[in-house]
Amino acid sequence: MSEETSIDVPEGWDIGGNTNGGYLMLRAAKFMREQAQRAMAVTVTGHFLRPVAAGPAQLTCDEIKRGRLLTTMRGDLIVDGRLALTLLGAFSDLDRQGQGSQFYAGSPPPLPPLEDCVPAWHLPTADALYRRIQIRCAADDPTILGGKRGGTGALEAWIAPPEGAEVATCDDLLLLVDCFPPPVFDLDLPINWTPTVELTVHVRGVPAPGWLRARCSTRFVRDGLLEESVELWDSADQLVAQSRQLAVEPRPR
Amino acid sequence: MSEETSIDVPEGWDIGGNTNGGYLMLRAAKFMREQAQRAMAVTVTGHFLRPVAAGPAQLTCDEIKRGRLLTTMRGDLIVDGRLALTLLGAFSDLDRQGQGSQFYAGSPPPLPPLEDCVPAWHLPTADALYRRIQIRCAADDPTILGGKRGGTGALEAWIAPPEGAEVATCDDLLLLVDCFPPPVFDLDLPINWTPTVELTVHVRGVPAPGWLRARCSTRFVRDGLLEESVELWDSADQLVAQSRQLAVEPRPR
Repeated sequence: MSEETSIDVPEGWDIGGNTNGGYLMLRAAKFMREQAQRAMAVTVTGHFLRPVAAGPAQLTCDEIKRGRLLTTMRGDLIVDGRLALTLLGAFSDLDRQGQGSQFYAGSPPPLPPLEDCVPAWHLPTADALYRRIQIRCAADDPTILGGKRGGTGALEAWIAPPEGAEVATCDDLLLLVDCFPPPVFDLDLPINWTPTVELTVHVRGVPAPGWLRARCSTRFVRDGLLEESVELWDSADQLVAQSRQLAVEPRPR
Repeated sequence: MSEETSIDVPEGWDIGGNTNGGYLMLRAAKFMREQAQRAMAVTVTGHFLRPVAAGPAQLTCDEIKRGRLLTTMRGDLIVDGRLALTLLGAFSDLDRQGQGSQFYAGSPPPLPPLEDCVPAWHLPTADALYRRIQIRCAADDPTILGGKRGGTGALEAWIAPPEGAEVATCDDLLLLVDCFPPPVFDLDLPINWTPTVELTVHVRGVPAPGWLRARCSTRFVRDGLLEESVELWDSADQLVAQSRQLAVEPRPR
C-alpha cells in the first residue's frame, strides 16, 4: 500500500548548495502525516544518505501500523532514482493536547526580549536559507551567533516562523530545529559542512503564535562524530520540540 | 535483498511479562549489524509497535546504503506474522575510534565507588530482567532507586555488563540503556508500564572493561508523552552511549 508523489525541491532552502536537511524532513514527514490522516508528528527520525540539490524528487510512504493513539509510517525521499533520505515516524491527533500530567525540569532560554536582539552575526547571508528563516541573538552574545567562539558549544536564539508567517505549524518545527548554525562552530573546530547522519525530532506541542526560543548544544564530540540537541520553546513558555542528531565532525576546508 | 532469520526470544528478559525493549533492540540491531558486516552500531532507532512475549520470532533486514564510513540498514522484528518492532540504523567499523577531536561538556555521574553502592531498592526482583542485569546506587540514594520519590526525575546508577560478563560489548549498550526504572517513577506519577514509542541510541564508543555508570532523566512530561535520556559512561571515564526515547505516560493501576 505504498503512497507516492512527485515534488519539486525549490531553490532557496540551501546551505552551501545542499538543501537544508530540516526542510527535507518537513516535506517528507508532512507527506507521511497527510497519508496517515493525522494532525501532527510525534516523533520522526531521518537518516540522510545523500546531499539534495533543488529539483524534482519523489516521496513514498507506507503505513506500518495504525493504532488508537499513533500511526507509524515509513517514508523515503528519492532523487534521480536514488534514496536520499529515509524516515520512520509516528503521528497523532490533537486530542492528546492538554491531557495528562505536566512536569518540566527545564525552562525557556533566558534571552533578552526579541526587540532587543540582533540578527545572528555569523549567518552567511549568501545562504538562501537565511533569507527565509530569521534568527536573532542577544546583542552581546558570547558565542558563534555573536561572531565569537565562546567555547561552550551551547547557543541560545530566537527563531521566526518560516517565511514571514505569524505562527509556526507543528510541521514547521521539523524544519526549524535544523536551521541553526551547528553549535560545534562555537568550539575550536573548522567551520565547514557538518553532515547529519541521523536526526530525530520529538514534536511536544502545538506552537503558540510568534517567534520561538531555541536552546542548541553539542555536548560530546568523539571519534569523528558529534551529537547536537535543540529545544524549541513557544511564546507561552511551552516546550514544543526537542531534537537530537548525530553528525560527522566538520573537516578543515 | 532482504535477509531473514528465525530467533527465539528467551524467557527471562521480561518486565511484567513483556520482553524488555532494549533486549529486542539488541537482538534486531545485532542482526542488522552482522548483515552489514560492520563492527558497531552508530545510531539505531526503534519504533515499538506491540508487546513481545518469549517465543519464536522472525528478524528481517535490508541494506539501504553502503557508504565508506557507514552502512544504513532497515530492520523488522515480526512475531506471529505481525510487526512488533521496526528499526532504522547506521553501522560503522572500528577505525573511527581515536580519530578526530574530543570535546566533552559533561562528565560521568559522581557516584560513590561500586563497592560502596547497594542494589537499587525498588527493582522488583520478581522481574526476571533483574536477575540478568545488576543495577547499584548510592546507599543514601534520594530517588526512586533508593525507594524514595525524589521528585527530580534524574537517576544515577552503576550497571553491570549483562549476565556476568566482564566487558559490555557495543551491542550490549543497546540493551543497557533501556534497563533502568523509568526516571518518571521518581516523580509523583503512577508506577506502571511506561510503553516506549520510539528509542534512539547513539553508540559513542567501545566500552572499557567493567561496570558502567548511567545518568538517566526525564525532563519533560506533557500531553501524555514523556522523553527519557540516558548517558552511559565506562570505567575509563568515556561516554559510550547516549539514548533518548519518547514514551507514553504511565496510567494509574
